[in-house]
Amino acid sequence: MASATDGRRHSQLSTGRDVRLACRNGSFSGNTADLAPGYVQGNLVILPADLAGDFLRYAQANPKPCPLLGVSDVGSPHIPLLGRDLDLRTDLPRYRVWKDGALIEEPRSIKTWWRNDLVAFVIGCSFTFEAALLDDGIPLRHVSCGANISMYRTTIQTTPAGAFHGPMVVSMRPLKAADAIRAVQITSRFPAMHGAPVHLGDPALIGIGDLAKPDYGDAVPVEPDEIPVFWACGVTPQAAIAAARPGFAMTHAPGSMLVTDRRNSEFSVI
Amino acid sequence: MASATDGRRHSQLSTGRDVRLACRNGSFSGNTADLAPGYVQGNLVILPADLAGDFLRYAQANPKPCPLLGVSDVGSPHIPLLGRDLDLRTDLPRYRVWKDGALIEEPRSIKTWWRNDLVAFVIGCSFTFEAALLDDGIPLRHVSCGANISMYRTTIQTTPAGAFHGPMVVSMRPLKAADAIRAVQITSRFPAMHGAPVHLGDPALIGIGDLAKPDYGDAVPVEPDEIPVFWACGVTPQAAIAAARPGFAMTHAPGSMLVTDRRNSEFSVI
Repeated sequence: MASATDGRRHSQLSTGRDVRLACRNGSFSGNTADLAPGYVQGNLVILPADLAGDFLRYAQANPKPCPLLGVSDVGSPHIPLLGRDLDLRTDLPRYRVWKDGALIEEPRSIKTWWRNDLVAFVIGCSFTFEAALLDDGIPLRHVSCGANISMYRTTIQTTPAGAFHGPMVVSMRPLKAADAIRAVQITSRFPAMHGAPVHLGDPALIGIGDLAKPDYGDAVPVEPDEIPVFWACGVTPQAAIAAARPGFAMTHAPGSMLVTDRRNSEFSVI
Repeated sequence: MASATDGRRHSQLSTGRDVRLACRNGSFSGNTADLAPGYVQGNLVILPADLAGDFLRYAQANPKPCPLLGVSDVGSPHIPLLGRDLDLRTDLPRYRVWKDGALIEEPRSIKTWWRNDLVAFVIGCSFTFEAALLDDGIPLRHVSCGANISMYRTTIQTTPAGAFHGPMVVSMRPLKAADAIRAVQITSRFPAMHGAPVHLGDPALIGIGDLAKPDYGDAVPVEPDEIPVFWACGVTPQAAIAAARPGFAMTHAPGSMLVTDRRNSEFSVI
């Protein structure tokens, strides 16, 4: 999460374009969680064109964990639909570069890594629906704890496509029952940001042995009057890519998302 | 529930008007649950005008247990909005007549009981959303068991109005988690039929000690991979009226609902 100091220092980053330009000119390289309220943020995946077709099919077959917000033309680092003069090579705070499944670099720009055969995918993330939940007065434990969201690998298998396969990864938010019901209503409005939960209640039913031991992120307490509510998570495609061990891939670094020009409210289907 | 024999005998009662005319001419006096698929059924409450204002305020303050589909003019047994030539004195299979909170008669017509100071209220019931759940492939245990729905008094208090007050009564349907999430989505579309659940998970949190001992209706098994899901129930206003002990009141008899001309689908808000 961004520190309070980061928050104050970057409070002038109030639009998606502000954030992108600050990344591009090198003045910002932090966590995007609290920036540009109301603007859609997304996960970034960049793959060579020979894998892009399979990944596109994988996303299409698994829309809850992999909701596609945009796909670039082959070789293009631009997705005009998501941002005016958006340049995917420079406009995120930090990237990860992968070779044969291994992380080899965490650069602040991928200009030197760009190739004419690359295709970029932007995948919706839960920040949009979390903003809607908070706006509705539903407290989120990881936010109040200043922690990262708890994420777990499950026994729910995604639909494979080509080299891409693996378990669905879910994020968990503990909620009182009435808030869980309201959260189903609110997040159902955002199918492009993982939509409604995939499970609630007994974690063992989806293969989670211990809520206190998340596979990613931080553990948060679940109170006796709360029910754990599980949403499909954007880490799912990252895990599928890691499993596929492509010769070359690039992604955003954790917490360093693409901030777009699109408004969260544009994606509410109701 | 209507027996299989009833079902065959009355399969020709395919519209709300068919059912009402069969009640009126004396050829039908059974359970309306399986009749006129697709047509909205409702609970009936009839009170003297001097209590009607309080009851209207009670319903307005408690829309989840008491969603009003229609209210008659003072002294009128008609609600044209709900049915062509509808006559509330004759068009239900069976009624209950109450004096000072005590049940005194279960007649098939209330023509002899009608008075010029009476106001009739029709309150939405769960048959509409249950039809939508079944259409979506979500199994309902009480239907598969041929049992009445399980209902429980809770520690959730309704908002009082005048003489009307009391606990919210809820109906319970055991569902697998994914079906529970889907059921929140589906029933949210029908605010006039109790809408989204009011609780799910631990029954003790709303004061229910033992699911196997419902206060009304029949117990049904809850499997280990299921979660109990609770909806506000139309028995709530009946309990509030019983608590208020009005000098005179009339209601439908259990399972003998008013069947209207309105289609379930008309009440879907999305």
